[in-house]
Amino acid sequence: MTYSIGIDIGGTNTDIGLVSSEGRCVARKNLPTAKYYDADLYVADICKKIREMMAEQHVDAIDGIGIAAPMGNYYTGCIDNATNLNFRGVTDLNALVHKYMDVPVTVSNDANAAAYGELVYGGAKGMKSFITFTLGTGVGSGIVIDGKLLHGKTGNAGELGHVIMIPGGRLCGCGRKGCLETYVSATGIRRTALEMLEQHPDYDGPLSKIPKEELTSKDVGDAANAGDPLAIKIFELTGEGLGVAMANAVAFSSPEAIFLMGGPVKAGEVLMRPVRESFKKHLCFVYENSVEIRVSELSGNEAAILGAAALTKAK
Amino acid sequence: MTYSIGIDIGGTNTDIGLVSSEGRCVARKNLPTAKYYDADLYVADICKKIREMMAEQHVDAIDGIGIAAPMGNYYTGCIDNATNLNFRGVTDLNALVHKYMDVPVTVSNDANAAAYGELVYGGAKGMKSFITFTLGTGVGSGIVIDGKLLHGKTGNAGELGHVIMIPGGRLCGCGRKGCLETYVSATGIRRTALEMLEQHPDYDGPLSKIPKEELTSKDVGDAANAGDPLAIKIFELTGEGLGVAMANAVAFSSPEAIFLMGGPVKAGEVLMRPVRESFKKHLCFVYENSVEIRVSELSGNEAAILGAAALTKAK
Repeated sequence: MTYSIGIDIGGTNTDIGLVSSEGRCVARKNLPTAKYYDADLYVADICKKIREMMAEQHVDAIDGIGIAAPMGNYYTGCIDNATNLNFRGVTDLNALVHKYMDVPVTVSNDANAAAYGELVYGGAKGMKSFITFTLGTGVGSGIVIDGKLLHGKTGNAGELGHVIMIPGGRLCGCGRKGCLETYVSATGIRRTALEMLEQHPDYDGPLSKIPKEELTSKDVGDAANAGDPLAIKIFELTGEGLGVAMANAVAFSSPEAIFLMGGPVKAGEVLMRPVRESFKKHLCFVYENSVEIRVSELSGNEAAILGAAALTKAK
Repeated sequence: MTYSIGIDIGGTNTDIGLVSSEGRCVARKNLPTAKYYDADLYVADICKKIREMMAEQHVDAIDGIGIAAPMGNYYTGCIDNATNLNFRGVTDLNALVHKYMDVPVTVSNDANAAAYGELVYGGAKGMKSFITFTLGTGVGSGIVIDGKLLHGKTGNAGELGHVIMIPGGRLCGCGRKGCLETYVSATGIRRTALEMLEQHPDYDGPLSKIPKEELTSKDVGDAANAGDPLAIKIFELTGEGLGVAMANAVAFSSPEAIFLMGGPVKAGEVLMRPVRESFKKHLCFVYENSVEIRVSELSGNEAAILGAAALTKAK
């Protein structure tokens, strides 16, 4: 058995896990990302936590460190101007880790790490070609072709959350209009819910009881699963849009499977049924019955760490 | 110097070319595809033409035969149920050629062949990652990643003409609605022109002089280049749509370049200016200045044969 380290850098928290070659996270520690203003000090503390974990678990050596970070760049090993971190400009994670530890470091963004986690430890084991969509605050995606994660010229291939679905549609955080993530992310689902509530002032179901500023996609999922027709309709619209985006992605790479993950997917069939129906309806006939639609097999709790650890196996 | 054969199978005509390793088409012959109802006889006659060309040009040996065919499948070497050919069902080109000649045969569709032609003989020489859009009766596309043509699970990766741009939009030949090719193919431009003429009954420019059933995208291009405001507007709408599709494709593979080819592209800046403007406007900021927009360097007349011949170099 060998071990590697997976690090999931979020704006608030940094999760660090010691992962066995079987894909088991045998130990976890974390750091409050937001409290650090100096990247060198931050990385020094990460490396200290890694050494502590290794000592506690009697692990003498690790294969490598995989880091999933917002705007993490696979080619440079840097975080490029992430807007939700206190470290300004470019943070060279690869160089900083090597000040403290002599092991290979692989950096990428969280959506790519999720795809690699699925390939190495999850439902995509042995697949040559698949796509993942992670529904969260935004929509992340990872594309695997010929068994390798697609990075492209810039290192930023696979930003399917920013495919324009409705020209002139909803304003996106990226400054453009109509991006997929404005409709089908957790935040997009919330936006759809607020629009629908405005259009149906007489509605008095469970969603009307929640203050508008507190309403989340999870509330919509719970209401849909309790049979609320408005919540069901919101998930139908979401599934319709996601199904079109998935069919379009198939026309690009003709993958074996598409994996969905993230909070809204946990709502289950109230989302997955309209997703599958829309996908089937919008898929070009040449791809009929060639693509499996799957929910990620990695548990949400550990998926990010497993994905980051899987990056150490990246080719 | 070595030689290979490029064959471009169209519904009406089959073009056969003898291509040097430098990318020069040194001889051409053709056959009337539509007159053949027996695939074996058809392939026998193709092989006869190849032997004649080789004898006339004093070429003793060829590296291989590349065939670009509607619904040509790279994995199987077959044509799968092409609707515009008289041969019904599956035509096993690979097996049929081997009845008459003992050389490697590579089959793909015409859009993939065009991309490979650009890579081997055209402006994409040395590139690792690019996308081509061929505007014709439909819209074909070819995607190169890591220096290889993308085929995907089915062999039909890269059907970007059938990406849904406007959900619920124009009816497409594939049976769905809003596909890219219903807007930006030569046929799509004609549809836009007919819609615009209907919306502007007082218009008396050059397009109003052409009987509606005869109006082509070439007429629109000629009128736009002569300064006709309605024709210019038609190409602006076309360029706007194509630019969005190109920006979306970049969010998938982050290529080094996008190449445009086909009839409407010959209209020049009246199309290319709005294409570039829309592409720039709709490109996600992470890809800014990373993608070249280019017109194919292969001459339209020989592009199909060169592309087919280039398939023999496919990895």
